[in-house]
Parts: sequence; structure tokens; C-alpha cells
Amino acid sequence: MRAAAKNCYNRLMAFFDTVAIVGVGLMGGSIGLALRKERMSKHVIGIGRRIEQLRLAENRGAVTEVTTDLRQGVASANLVVICTPVQQVPEFVAAAAKACKPETIITDVGSTKAAIVAACDKALADSKGLWASFVGSHPLAGSERTGVEFAREDLFQGRMTVVTPTDQTRSEATAKVDAFWQGLGSKVVRMSPAEHDAAVAVTSHLPHLIASALAAATPADLLPLTASGWGDSTRVAAGDVELWRQIFLDNRGNTLKALAPFETVLAELRQALEASDGPALARLLQQGKRIRDIVGS
Amino acid sequence: MRAAAKNCYNRLMAFFDTVAIVGVGLMGGSIGLALRKERMSKHVIGIGRRIEQLRLAENRGAVTEVTTDLRQGVASANLVVICTPVQQVPEFVAAAAKACKPETIITDVGSTKAAIVAACDKALADSKGLWASFVGSHPLAGSERTGVEFAREDLFQGRMTVVTPTDQTRSEATAKVDAFWQGLGSKVVRMSPAEHDAAVAVTSHLPHLIASALAAATPADLLPLTASGWGDSTRVAAGDVELWRQIFLDNRGNTLKALAPFETVLAELRQALEASDGPALARLLQQGKRIRDIVGS
Repeated sequence: MRAAAKNCYNRLMAFFDTVAIVGVGLMGGSIGLALRKERMSKHVIGIGRRIEQLRLAENRGAVTEVTTDLRQGVASANLVVICTPVQQVPEFVAAAAKACKPETIITDVGSTKAAIVAACDKALADSKGLWASFVGSHPLAGSERTGVEFAREDLFQGRMTVVTPTDQTRSEATAKVDAFWQGLGSKVVRMSPAEHDAAVAVTSHLPHLIASALAAATPADLLPLTASGWGDSTRVAAGDVELWRQIFLDNRGNTLKALAPFETVLAELRQALEASDGPALARLLQQGKRIRDIVGS
Repeated sequence: MRAAAKNCYNRLMAFFDTVAIVGVGLMGGSIGLALRKERMSKHVIGIGRRIEQLRLAENRGAVTEVTTDLRQGVASANLVVICTPVQQVPEFVAAAAKACKPETIITDVGSTKAAIVAACDKALADSKGLWASFVGSHPLAGSERTGVEFAREDLFQGRMTVVTPTDQTRSEATAKVDAFWQGLGSKVVRMSPAEHDAAVAVTSHLPHLIASALAAATPADLLPLTASGWGDSTRVAAGDVELWRQIFLDNRGNTLKALAPFETVLAELRQALEASDGPALARLLQQGKRIRDIVGS
């Protein structure tokens, strides 16, 4: 790296010296662990409602200090990451923005983006440069488990994070949020909030809906006869119900749009079975295998 | 163990001294590796059509000798395990039964049982004690991968194997097949072939159908935005198309029966989304989570 570029990079990374995390569960805890592992932050401030949960995060080394007072927690932060369920993101962004230094950047990890980003942009529209700025993000990483006890320092390693700037977003803020996720080992792709929500409806929200239906339709007395196939296919159905209820309600239009092509293929499979149509069955199974093989194991 | 019981056990285990495996792919290869690891068999004879595949199995230590001649391969075996795709099982059982010693026992690993067991019972009905006997089995273990290169000595460890005797089966033969799978680390449950097929339609064949539909309905350009949820939910769709085409055609009635309750739950989820009905959504997600949590991660 040339000296000027290196200097610029060092200044950029120094920005992450003090990071506040609101909601230190699986996601927030994993961000803290990764920040500490990558030596990106000297101060990682864990903010939450329950002090026991915050102490747990501190004991795991995910945060260096803890507080239940949002305003106090974000006051010294250069970056604030909101890791709450999606419905609570806008209120925390608005509250944090007004308690931060004006140069602070706020991002989130919500699984939906259009409603969150619109609400945050609206809340911060009157900032006049006095409040912190917001850039939406969504790391495509997670687990059906919840809680800081399942946090992992490598959760974002090699995964994709979608960053969703709008016309209102300062490009410098977006660049910093990109660098933040890249620092944690993630690849970054930028999309509009609407594009993001349509895409993850297909790649994440629909699979969750299907897995829940499959698990819910399985009689408990047959569970001893399940093997890894059923286990893999239904794994995400163990996810937090309230978290996912919010995601589905927030992204219901796109999820319904994503559901239709699935229903069409399933109806074709049903028809092939009803007609004992071996070639049609093979064609549909092959179509699924072709797509699945692209991703690999 | 008392001396008499130990003596009886030793005689039972000595029965597995020479085992022939017809079709040495992932399943057959894993059986061979497990037999060798557990020191159950001195001779594991791999039988197949392609000598290169057999040599691969021999090099992996899954079999001790190989042959492409079925009659020759099974002649000295006490136990023969047919590990071919389901449609070919009955013909191999019939051919092997007539080339074996009369006291030989033949079993299989087919994912469906009613049609296989009926065909085998019919083929062996005229035995008059001259031919080997057959007991159907289905180890609930496997992989979306195929080929002896993916065989694993622990594939059956802690898994369930369904053994499906009929009125025609000698109880001594069933006991030996039970002991065989238990020797490989499997738990064993006995069911009628019809009961088995109805159960695995729900626990294995339906999840495969759903995974295939979900993968087939995903546009390839969105795959970079998939994460572990999509990956887990669709994993089995990478399975061998011809193998699964046969399974679905063989067990189509039960698979269609298993599909109906899934379609009902999915329709309820669709309705809850369309109506923005949060409580209904939460109830259905909770129902799925409750069932999934029983199995654990």
C-alpha cells in the first residue's frame, strides 16, 4: 500500500475504535467478538435492557463496557450498530442519532430494509447536520439460535452483507459501513432497500416459511424416524417466533410474491406424482439439483 | 454376560464373518467401512458392475475382495446386503438367493419397503428351504452425495434402522438382521413394510420433494444472496435424481398423502400473510418451532 493510501486506511479503521452495540444477542455479540478478534475496536459498548444479559456478553469478551442507558452508551461512539428485532430499529436509530456526536454513523442488522430505512430517513430528515447519520445493512448470517451464548467471532467470515444507502445517505457514511463489515470478514454488496427486500424474500424469508410449514405438518410421533434430511430442511423453523413474525409482517408483500413460484413448482411435482409421470418428475428434480449444486455443500 | 449368553452372542456375531455387498456406493461402502472398523467381518466381498468403482472401494478399505460376478460373490457369504437403487433390489435378491447357501440371509437398504418386500417374498415363495431368506431393512442414514468416495464408517452410528419382517420371514433371520445393524452402531425398530412406507413418506420423501421445489423455484441470479437457511433447507435437493425418481414413483401414494397436511399448513401461512394476521402467523410459526425443537440441533 502506498503511504497516502495506508494513511487513509488507518484513519478509516481508527473510526471503529469506539463502537456501541444496541442489543447484545447472537448478532450483536458476534459483532463484538469479531471486532475484538480483528483488533478493530478498543471500546465496544454493550447497550441493552437487561443487565444480566449485558454481563454475560462482557464475560464472553464480546463487549468491553456495558450500560442500560442508551444515551450514555452511544455518546462517545463513532459507530452504533442496532441489533434489535426489526420493529424496534427505527425508534432506537432516532433516539441514538440525537444522543450521538454528529459525525457518528448508525447502522443496523435488520433482515428487512425498506420500512426500516424509510422510517429512519424520515426521523433524521430534520437533522440539519446536528444528528448522526444512518445507513441500513443486513449481514446474511445468523442462526436459529438466539442469545449471546451462541455468538461466534467468525459469524460474518466469508458471508455477504447487503448495505442499502438511499438518496439521503452521505457517500462517506456508506463507505465506512462497507469498511466495517469488510473488517469483520464479510463481503459487501450494495442494493436499494426495495431490491434487498425482494431478494431476501426469495433467499431467506420463503425458506423459513416453508421450513415452518414442514415442521408444523410433521406428527410428533414420527420424529424418531426423521434423519438428517428432515433435520436440515426444517432447521430454521427453530428460530425465534417473535423475530420472524415481525420479519414476515414487514416483508409480507415480497414473501407472498416469492411464494407463488414455489407453489407452482410444487403443484407440478404433485401432478407428476399423481400421473406417475417419471420423466416430468426427473425433470423437476433435475431442475432443483442444478440450482442446489451451484451453491455446493 | 453369563457364559451361555456370551457363547450365543459370539455365535451370532460369527455369522457376520463373511458379508457380501452388492453395489458399493455411499451406503454399501459405509457398511463395509463400519464392518471393518467394528471387526465384525474378516471377508467383505464387494460386488458391482464396474471394476474401477470396486477397486476404489477396495482401496478405501471398504471391502476385502471384489468381483463383478454376483453368483461367485455371494457363494460364500453368510449375509448379503443389496445396496442398489430400489427398482433393482428384487431382481438382485432373487438372483442372489438362488446362488447362496440356504442358511444365508439377504437384506437391503432401500428407502421404500412395501413393493420391494412383496416382490422378494413372491420370488422366494417357492424356496422349499433351498434358497437364502430375505429380510427388508432401511437405515435412516445417508447423504445427498453418492459414491464410495463419500462413504463413512460412522454413517450408521446412533441412527435408526427400520427392519420390516413379514409373516413369511423366519424370526431367526430377523434377529440376525437386527444384530447386524446394531453391530454397525444403529438403533433398530421393526415395522411392517406398509407402516414403514407411510412413515418415511412424511419424514424423508416429503422433505425431499419440498427441498427440490424450493431449489427449483430459486432464480440462479439470487444465489449469491442465500445464506445457511436456504442452504440447509434445500440440501437434499442435490441428491441423485434417478435414485429419488424411483423412490417417489415407488411410494407415490404415501408421498401424496404426506403432501396434503403440508399444503394445508402452507395455505394457512399464506392466508395469515395476506391478512397481516400477526397472531395466526405467530401460532403457526410456534407450532413449527415446537416440533423442530423436539429434534434439537
